[in-house]
Amino acid sequence: MADYILPLQRLIEQFRSLPGIGGKTAVRLAFSIVEESEERAEAFAEAILAAKREICTCEICGNLSTSSVCPICDDAERDRSIICVVEDARDVMAFERLRDFRGLYHVLGGLLSPMKGIGVENIRVRELLERLKNDEVKEILIATGATVEGETTATYIARLLEPFGISVTRLAYGLPVGGDLEYADEITLHRALEGRQTILGE
Amino acid sequence: MADYILPLQRLIEQFRSLPGIGGKTAVRLAFSIVEESEERAEAFAEAILAAKREICTCEICGNLSTSSVCPICDDAERDRSIICVVEDARDVMAFERLRDFRGLYHVLGGLLSPMKGIGVENIRVRELLERLKNDEVKEILIATGATVEGETTATYIARLLEPFGISVTRLAYGLPVGGDLEYADEITLHRALEGRQTILGE
Repeated sequence: MADYILPLQRLIEQFRSLPGIGGKTAVRLAFSIVEESEERAEAFAEAILAAKREICTCEICGNLSTSSVCPICDDAERDRSIICVVEDARDVMAFERLRDFRGLYHVLGGLLSPMKGIGVENIRVRELLERLKNDEVKEILIATGATVEGETTATYIARLLEPFGISVTRLAYGLPVGGDLEYADEITLHRALEGRQTILGE
Repeated sequence: MADYILPLQRLIEQFRSLPGIGGKTAVRLAFSIVEESEERAEAFAEAILAAKREICTCEICGNLSTSSVCPICDDAERDRSIICVVEDARDVMAFERLRDFRGLYHVLGGLLSPMKGIGVENIRVRELLERLKNDEVKEILIATGATVEGETTATYIARLLEPFGISVTRLAYGLPVGGDLEYADEITLHRALEGRQTILGE
């Protein structure tokens, strides 16, 4: 890889440092920039700088925002009695795409992970408890992923919330829609069995 | 996709316009920029601008270069009697990684393609003929890909070179190394048969 001229090599390394971009893809992307017009390259560079300059986190929920309070927290029509707790801003986008959930969010900014050295002080748990001080909130929906870290974090938060006497819920486990029984892993199948729902009778 | 805040949406679109980057990957890459430090984002933006600012094409061979004549054309130790004709700068890099070829290059900057509206005036054929004016060159190795466009371009250039009375060669066709006969397509197999080489006797 040392045969590229220096500015190209530097650009390749920048692309390579992005998540999920390997050596060959980085080369392809860097070449595409070199082959593009100067205006396109400038627009790209400006979009990167603008994203860093203009995006901050909402001081209430921790979601990405261009203002100190994000449009969701600022929306008077959202249901303020339910807060959906998620790992990061991407999860907020996933829920928003559904258009099913009309409550508020709380972005933790990570999940508890002793392996990665992420403890309680590294995620926005204290800020969540702060939000419960007024009596508006009736339900906390913990929507962390079904991974070891997601589970640990959910259990930890649920325990913290006990004294508040509010409803704490978790996303349902089960077969993914379109999922073939044959290919489901045992744990998922086990959870799907445990959480089985009545469709007839009681 | 319209639920992202504007600076993020713009960055996603920029990533999406890169070759081979789909919607989900673009989102992942844009988020990774937002989550990175400001210095990293600035270094990335600067690498893009520097690549456009500092990289030009060699006025002799058309390869990417940071000076008006590229290091290969400028290298007195290279064999000036053979010119390897390739589609683009990436192909030069591929040959250079081999460290087997010590001749010069000529980058066409494209391949003839009536479908894409690329004609003789759009690729650097005239510049190639210019380079034959001094009598140094003894062989032109046409190393365009084994595609329809690559073939058409090779045939066209070979015909143009006829009056010059120099040797014109083409890369060998055949099975890729490690390739299973069973999976080789018919045309490749046909070419491999045609080009079969004697390993014993005459």
